Amino acid sequence: MMPTPPQSHLPLGTGVEFDAIRAMLQVWGSQASGIGDDAAMLQVPAGESLVVSTDATFEHVHFRREWLTPHEIGARAAAAALSDLAAMGATPAGLLLALGVPPAWRGEMEALAHGVGEVAAAALCPIVGGNVTRAGELSLTITVLGTSPRPLQRAGARTGDALYVTGMLGGPGAALDALLRGATPRDVDRARFAAPRARIAEGRWLAEHGARAAIDVSDGLIADAGHLAAASDVRVVIELASLPCLDGITPEGAASSGEEYELLVAFPADARPSADEFRAQFDLPLTEVGFVAEGHGVGLDGRGGRVDLLRGYDHLS
Amino acid sequence: MMPTPPQSHLPLGTGVEFDAIRAMLQVWGSQASGIGDDAAMLQVPAGESLVVSTDATFEHVHFRREWLTPHEIGARAAAAALSDLAAMGATPAGLLLALGVPPAWRGEMEALAHGVGEVAAAALCPIVGGNVTRAGELSLTITVLGTSPRPLQRAGARTGDALYVTGMLGGPGAALDALLRGATPRDVDRARFAAPRARIAEGRWLAEHGARAAIDVSDGLIADAGHLAAASDVRVVIELASLPCLDGITPEGAASSGEEYELLVAFPADARPSADEFRAQFDLPLTEVGFVAEGHGVGLDGRGGRVDLLRGYDHLS
Repeated sequence: MMPTPPQSHLPLGTGVEFDAIRAMLQVWGSQASGIGDDAAMLQVPAGESLVVSTDATFEHVHFRREWLTPHEIGARAAAAALSDLAAMGATPAGLLLALGVPPAWRGEMEALAHGVGEVAAAALCPIVGGNVTRAGELSLTITVLGTSPRPLQRAGARTGDALYVTGMLGGPGAALDALLRGATPRDVDRARFAAPRARIAEGRWLAEHGARAAIDVSDGLIADAGHLAAASDVRVVIELASLPCLDGITPEGAASSGEEYELLVAFPADARPSADEFRAQFDLPLTEVGFVAEGHGVGLDGRGGRVDLLRGYDHLS
Repeated sequence: MMPTPPQSHLPLGTGVEFDAIRAMLQVWGSQASGIGDDAAMLQVPAGESLVVSTDATFEHVHFRREWLTPHEIGARAAAAALSDLAAMGATPAGLLLALGVPPAWRGEMEALAHGVGEVAAAALCPIVGGNVTRAGELSLTITVLGTSPRPLQRAGARTGDALYVTGMLGGPGAALDALLRGATPRDVDRARFAAPRARIAEGRWLAEHGARAAIDVSDGLIADAGHLAAASDVRVVIELASLPCLDGITPEGAASSGEEYELLVAFPADARPSADEFRAQFDLPLTEVGFVAEGHGVGLDGRGGRVDLLRGYDHLS
């Protein structure tokens, strides 16, 4: 059951900040609810846990203006945030958008709002609050709330588990490589970079079909496998040859590509999911890519020394 | 009842971003809980509403580095965010800190974390999540969650209500005026500017004693009275002569001083709160400052023409 936010938002006061918020509310229409109070109100179904996550996208750090349309920037930021709910197997309940807006971006706020709204709508996630402030560079800090009777966590993986990943990997990494060297990315790569999907329904399906740990692939499969291993106090072994690579992408490229927002999921070896059923439901592959062993860190299919070559994306490095 | 977050946080992976998060976790100790998963988990007591708000503080927009210590910057950002829960009469349940960190600020992250942690601790609010990214300017975007059986809203004011404000006004405005002209603020003003308090316990007391609408004073009393008036579809009349001014502050200064984080609250005229009881409990004045009338906008004690002179702080102007 979706938590029920208040059905309408309040009249707002005056001022440029509120004009900007009003323009975005007009874009969002009935998607936005309860905005204009000091805080938004949500109901959490009895017996369910609330899950909450915050995620930031900064110009110059996470993208350059010439790489993406404002609509894509909004959509991508929302997908990145909602992906954390997908990794918990949670049902979205609300999204809050905090915008830092430089003068040069003021004319793009409706397009940004459109992008955020489109992705939120696809996730059936109401927009319940936010904040607008001027800033020296564009930033979107998005907080998402969701509910689940039994959230998936990173810490649930156990020795012997089988590891699966959703979708096809490598597009965002290849697109970013091309953009960074001034080349034009292939359309197939750019689409995955500019318009990632948050695997909300997929995450719920996986949780309902027995997954016991999950993480979304934001830093790169190897790096995120490392986070899963650390949280679960296990070793994760990835079989490079088994990775689902987009056409023309090497396994190494697929393993290090960040901002995929696919899900890496652990299942007990005796309770594996049906990839056929998953594909029939979501038109998306679900591929076994490795297993969980005793120890710690990430091993690559007998080539453990390769791990250092495949660095995930580190936002402060 | 406090919602119960998970009792411990997960081991984290490797990388500079995670080192920064680890350093902050060390500062927070047992104040931080459940950090390291894709999303934090919280339980909301049955029958209570969840309230959530996000608030951003940007260098150059909300402060200049030379005005405040890093500890004060963190404390101030947390107080500003928690103040939105105070205005809803809610009990804090969790705080998420999204940091944008320029290279020149990296050495200050522990001091920032100390400031956030001190204010969160005073509000009995666990720190449940966050995000760290590099950025061109320092920003703290803080999301707070709280719970309440019956949240106070801006829209609840009715014609005939009496309006009260907590505390003594004018310090932050006077401090900011001094800083902006290169002067040294008085200690009493600077203390209110650099270390505001979120009126959490006060907000709950007011809600329990019959308040039916509230807003926190962040843009300035007149500007926030305007937001309350717009949300409640009423006119708010403020009696300038009645404002509780810090020594040496004019009523006009008190009425336009922003970032006070005091509460402006409406009570039915026949169910007024006891200012004596309030003061006995919180060592803080609770002052009647006006009333609610039919109409819209804000009137000043028969001097309606003055409203335009008393502009609130508008983050995009």
